[in-house]
Amino acid sequence: MQTAALRKLKNKELNRKTIEEFKTAPKTPIIVILDNIRSSNNVGSVFRTSDAFLIEKIYLCGITAIPPNKDIQRTALGATDTVEWEYAENTLAVIEKLKANGVQIASIEQAENSIMLQDFTPKQDAKIAIIMGNEVKGVQQDVVSASDSCIEIPQFGTKHSLNISVTCGIVLWDLFNKVIK
Amino acid sequence: MQTAALRKLKNKELNRKTIEEFKTAPKTPIIVILDNIRSSNNVGSVFRTSDAFLIEKIYLCGITAIPPNKDIQRTALGATDTVEWEYAENTLAVIEKLKANGVQIASIEQAENSIMLQDFTPKQDAKIAIIMGNEVKGVQQDVVSASDSCIEIPQFGTKHSLNISVTCGIVLWDLFNKVIK
Repeated sequence: MQTAALRKLKNKELNRKTIEEFKTAPKTPIIVILDNIRSSNNVGSVFRTSDAFLIEKIYLCGITAIPPNKDIQRTALGATDTVEWEYAENTLAVIEKLKANGVQIASIEQAENSIMLQDFTPKQDAKIAIIMGNEVKGVQQDVVSASDSCIEIPQFGTKHSLNISVTCGIVLWDLFNKVIK
Repeated sequence: MQTAALRKLKNKELNRKTIEEFKTAPKTPIIVILDNIRSSNNVGSVFRTSDAFLIEKIYLCGITAIPPNKDIQRTALGATDTVEWEYAENTLAVIEKLKANGVQIASIEQAENSIMLQDFTPKQDAKIAIIMGNEVKGVQQDVVSASDSCIEIPQFGTKHSLNISVTCGIVLWDLFNKVIK
């Protein structure tokens, strides 16, 4: 039963942050690590989604393209100017550095002993870093092995995996709601 | 603390369905309506995500491209062979038909009186159809007005919206978990 008029909001009514407001806003204690992502369009999409959920930082590792890049910009639509990012050649080195700082490390993978996303609860009072892997190879096994846990999105169809942009959106949405509670 | 070895699974260990198994499997009582989607890549991605969550049907409306289409295939990766779909020129006509069959209609939009996704609960014992709109214009206002409700993904950054593939992934993941409980 429809009880109230559903009027679409104009962009200016959305009260989004300016770049300056974004920079100084408290961030969601979630870090995204991109482990050798091939598609710059996927990288840009991860930036756009990370902007929406005030993600703290994105690490772009290995062959992952970095801004400025035309294909990243095509899907990031400016979100590379807001979300903090850093390039690192070696994904494992990033993990070790974050672990030393008490960050919980979770690879997004289909693995033995993985935890289904709906059952996963981030540690309280700890930042969490999620690792998204290459479009074909997934997260490298040694990166998976160095993680505290694997988070898996249960899938019931014929395809073996979801697109990386979609996976990142689902995981960030799910964890964002668990973390801000 | 890592308590068990995290070995990545091989594709054959994922025990995905064959196309034939997909066709006869009980479906999730969720329908996706694409209202004038411009990008065939987005259409394909929606197919791939819908395959993973056993979505009942996708309506491709207005200018939305239909299979077979090279760009749809590039992102659907075969999911157009599994998920049921139908083309309809007029989105409103689809909505009226579904409403007449007791389907709950929810536009995914930022609107006055929208319900935030985390607060939205689908009706029990009713199918739900979600409507995703054009990349620039969103869902048409008359389609929004004809909906039972608007579902909104809360966003806290600088950009006005999320990518459609990402939005569809987030909404399907969230509703899937609410519907199968």
